[in-house]
Amino acid sequence: MQYFSGSGWDLDPAEVNRAVESAFADHGYGLVQMPPKVYITLPGGDFRTMPAYLPSLKMAGVKVVNVHPENPQQGLPTVMALTIILDIATGRPVAVLNATRLTDIRTGSAGAVAAKYLAPKKTVTLGIAGTGRQAEAQVRATAAELEIEKILIWSRNPRHADRFVALMDRFDCTSVSLEKVCDADVIVTTTPSRTPIIRSEWVHEGTHINAIGADAPGKEELDPALLNRAQVFVDDMAQATHSGEVNVPIAQGIYRQEAIAGTLGEVVIGKKRRERPDRITLFDSTGLAIQDLAIAAIAMRQGTAIDLPFL
Amino acid sequence: MQYFSGSGWDLDPAEVNRAVESAFADHGYGLVQMPPKVYITLPGGDFRTMPAYLPSLKMAGVKVVNVHPENPQQGLPTVMALTIILDIATGRPVAVLNATRLTDIRTGSAGAVAAKYLAPKKTVTLGIAGTGRQAEAQVRATAAELEIEKILIWSRNPRHADRFVALMDRFDCTSVSLEKVCDADVIVTTTPSRTPIIRSEWVHEGTHINAIGADAPGKEELDPALLNRAQVFVDDMAQATHSGEVNVPIAQGIYRQEAIAGTLGEVVIGKKRRERPDRITLFDSTGLAIQDLAIAAIAMRQGTAIDLPFL
Repeated sequence: MQYFSGSGWDLDPAEVNRAVESAFADHGYGLVQMPPKVYITLPGGDFRTMPAYLPSLKMAGVKVVNVHPENPQQGLPTVMALTIILDIATGRPVAVLNATRLTDIRTGSAGAVAAKYLAPKKTVTLGIAGTGRQAEAQVRATAAELEIEKILIWSRNPRHADRFVALMDRFDCTSVSLEKVCDADVIVTTTPSRTPIIRSEWVHEGTHINAIGADAPGKEELDPALLNRAQVFVDDMAQATHSGEVNVPIAQGIYRQEAIAGTLGEVVIGKKRRERPDRITLFDSTGLAIQDLAIAAIAMRQGTAIDLPFL
Repeated sequence: MQYFSGSGWDLDPAEVNRAVESAFADHGYGLVQMPPKVYITLPGGDFRTMPAYLPSLKMAGVKVVNVHPENPQQGLPTVMALTIILDIATGRPVAVLNATRLTDIRTGSAGAVAAKYLAPKKTVTLGIAGTGRQAEAQVRATAAELEIEKILIWSRNPRHADRFVALMDRFDCTSVSLEKVCDADVIVTTTPSRTPIIRSEWVHEGTHINAIGADAPGKEELDPALLNRAQVFVDDMAQATHSGEVNVPIAQGIYRQEAIAGTLGEVVIGKKRRERPDRITLFDSTGLAIQDLAIAAIAMRQGTAIDLPFL
């Protein structure tokens, strides 16, 4: 058995995007096994267990990932993760991966794949709410798919916004108000908000929105009125209605599950598409275990491993 | 993060039995979080993901365990397992354990705890169907709870039975027919059978049966008529009805879920008990994630670890 502790930041974003895109295609064709995430509540947060089998890559395994919002106060990331990979022929554990950064990266890739298919144009202004690791991952991954002309960034904390602008020095990146973030072709929301922060009237027709932050029951970042204006695609129907951006509006009866246009997998395989140039499109990302398997395959090929005794 | 590769055979059976008994008590009181196992089907078998949180031990984590029946043909165990343990305060992964043998041992302990509370007497003849690792684990664990006067063992393969008799040289152990196995105070079934092998008319009133083998949909070892004669206790209602000894008879309408007397946890806390000395009692074991957390706590205290970089 091998242990991979590597960060993953050295992986080529375009290569990861292709692997994640291919996993979404398999999902669109119904060629994967992936039960919904299972949540366990802990005193200061929760953890999620995400098993899957992706036959096209001969990859099977489980990611275990926590969310503890108070962690940064003691110098730990909010989200940490391990992925276990099993040999599909024998079930033998072949690898354990530190999937903390890999989780950020594969989530960035899902946004990039959604933007590739749904953004209104190929050269875009990117508006981003939030300046954490996920905001960074979204930019890195999306820059491999679209020409980023400008980045408009907002953080609740102005110092975090300044830090992000400095980090993005290869881009034309400006710290703006949340309303101004919406003057973009592609809006990406990456906050842990539990109340809507993006107002519907701020968003222009034709915009594509990647709603990344909401990944647990009770979380939402967008004015529900936006959902009703938009063509909404989810990563997985069961997960999104349970814990994605649509979960609260559906629970409150403001939005109907039947209104969801389809899955990103269906978009990737050409079964679903953007209807009109002037329609808002929205990708509701909760994070799929098959994304974790896809990036694990790359990390295992390219990373440095520690050999561990198993049998 | 630490990796524990140890086998676990050096753990004290009585200590493990107490830890498992205590976990069942917590389960009986409703003090644990443990969603049902999630199954993924692979080409030559399956794997199960088992997350849980056991507040009394401050233990949270996930076991990932496969079942590949053809593995022994290539020198690999049918069942292999890893357990991941998370720090409950921060969600940080603190340990990965090779849980292959620990799985055998904690399953043995569940049988031992059931026999402690439900066996008709304290000095017993033990009848065992099957001679694999689980048969051995059941004897080791049960010997720490009851006086074992005699062991009657049956295997489909006479050489396996002879090997088992040799292994059990500290006991009065005899290889017998399957019918004769039932001339026991406690019967333990540990086979992977998908058709009933123990006939109801072979089993005397007052016997206690530990039904261990059935742990997936379609598996069964006992004549369904036995269920209707017996006071049936399960480890967990959702898991047992899905994948335990009762799963096939319930699916076929031969046994009713409502007839189940209760859980082992309820027996341990005194809420349920053997009704009459001359009634057959039956414990239907599917294996609980909280058993894995309980034994992991002991293995982490007593085992030797390899330190791994994580953050």
